[in-house]
Amino acid sequence: MIGIDWGTTSLRAYRLGPGGAVTDRLDRPGGILTVPAGGFPAALREAVGPWLAQGETRVLLCGMVGSRQGWVEAPYLRCPAGPAEIAAATVPVPFDGAEIRLVPGLTTEDADGIPDVMRGEETKLVALAIGLDDALACMPGTHSKWARLEADRVTHFTTHMTGETFAALSAHTILARTSLDGPHRPEAFARGVTRARQHGGLLHHLFGARTLHLMDRLEQAETRSYLSGLLIGHEIAAALAAHPVAQVELVGAAELAALYEDALRLSGVTVRKHDPDLVAAGLHQIGRSLGWI
Amino acid sequence: MIGIDWGTTSLRAYRLGPGGAVTDRLDRPGGILTVPAGGFPAALREAVGPWLAQGETRVLLCGMVGSRQGWVEAPYLRCPAGPAEIAAATVPVPFDGAEIRLVPGLTTEDADGIPDVMRGEETKLVALAIGLDDALACMPGTHSKWARLEADRVTHFTTHMTGETFAALSAHTILARTSLDGPHRPEAFARGVTRARQHGGLLHHLFGARTLHLMDRLEQAETRSYLSGLLIGHEIAAALAAHPVAQVELVGAAELAALYEDALRLSGVTVRKHDPDLVAAGLHQIGRSLGWI
Repeated sequence: MIGIDWGTTSLRAYRLGPGGAVTDRLDRPGGILTVPAGGFPAALREAVGPWLAQGETRVLLCGMVGSRQGWVEAPYLRCPAGPAEIAAATVPVPFDGAEIRLVPGLTTEDADGIPDVMRGEETKLVALAIGLDDALACMPGTHSKWARLEADRVTHFTTHMTGETFAALSAHTILARTSLDGPHRPEAFARGVTRARQHGGLLHHLFGARTLHLMDRLEQAETRSYLSGLLIGHEIAAALAAHPVAQVELVGAAELAALYEDALRLSGVTVRKHDPDLVAAGLHQIGRSLGWI
Repeated sequence: MIGIDWGTTSLRAYRLGPGGAVTDRLDRPGGILTVPAGGFPAALREAVGPWLAQGETRVLLCGMVGSRQGWVEAPYLRCPAGPAEIAAATVPVPFDGAEIRLVPGLTTEDADGIPDVMRGEETKLVALAIGLDDALACMPGTHSKWARLEADRVTHFTTHMTGETFAALSAHTILARTSLDGPHRPEAFARGVTRARQHGGLLHHLFGARTLHLMDRLEQAETRSYLSGLLIGHEIAAALAAHPVAQVELVGAAELAALYEDALRLSGVTVRKHDPDLVAAGLHQIGRSLGWI
């Protein structure tokens, strides 16, 4: 089978052998935003046509290709959901010469009835969940995801708008004057993480980044790392309050994962880091549930 | 005496009679950012020269004119501080033909030892404190101030970066797609305020503004008011957690004060609104402590 993670800005395709081994792969910029209306079949053929010509007949797609802006909308599937539920909710799309299915995103509601959504992460979580039980996974990013994994299913998750809030505040507020790009300052980052667990709330803590600098207690070159620690610290405090655990399963790109690892340890939990390259294994797992492989 | 509130973008001058009556006033755009280096004496003379020529000999200045970017820096005075302490900490500046003094800003530290500052608001609070005791004042804005008033002194305060965070998030994140300008939606605002008291933390609540819209549970035209309610709600929750009170003294411009009044009532406290035009009375009060009037 072929598995594809087709996101907003890129397309990553994997040719998968029976045991889930990746026998070939490609990675290209043609994200869904570059595809004209009605152009998905042609774009798919352009990307993996040679593999189809070599006899592949089944293609599983995940990511934003299944969103309202994608090929066809694959409606959000309600948690709890594992590979079996996800496989059953995949959406077929007509295509000449191969069977194509889209992986749905997931939705959940928090304790107060407010909905949350993910699209793309569910496939990585399916792979992560193999061999874990009763785990809390953290996937940091623009919109960080925290997911509860029980047996092989995602039972609940929350999104935190941490990365995007950091970008907006560090560029478009009074903190922009001091939040200049520069090397990471671990000590200032740790001070921000610690501050996040204190009283006063995030909106007050943000102004503190300004006053600490004004009072010569935080250098200009430290402000960016302090702000980063503050926001990540607030995210972690909220996530651990909702799901008190002793260990967090961390899945993220190297640099961001290193920040979260430090912040999580400062927050008193142990961290297990996982290879973030989980999509191919997740697509394989859903393909197995479909009986494709 | 003459009292002047000289801020970043404007200059407001008051000619004050013995009882504090404003006998003349002027309001002009010439904020401190428009004054060239060394130009403050000339700018002052240009603004209030006619009053000086008519016999005024004492001028009290408050606001950003006393900051590092102003005429002379009037160092932050530590709380608790009332008119007597503020008067004693005013900074004289040389001027031909009149006595000029700059009002200092205030500084405090929160329970965790993080500093906070205000400059300009202290003069309004001096006026507000007249006749109040053991009160909690809220001055909403770009950087909202919450101040504890005991007898006639400011004993403690905190700043919340609410207005600026709202501007950054509503213009520079995924919420910008839906947070369009439009009429205030009181019901959506109230939902945001209520949400702020629930679990999950601000960074998670922000993403909820997106998912509620995605799930057709929040209209595009409601997102801006919901986001506003969320941020103001978080500010109020943090401020009331630090200082549990039954009543809040609210000082703000009409439109913003109306929002905070609604949010405060939803948070279970009674609200007393005050005329925000307090600077002249505060300058008069500090002038009295100086023995000027």
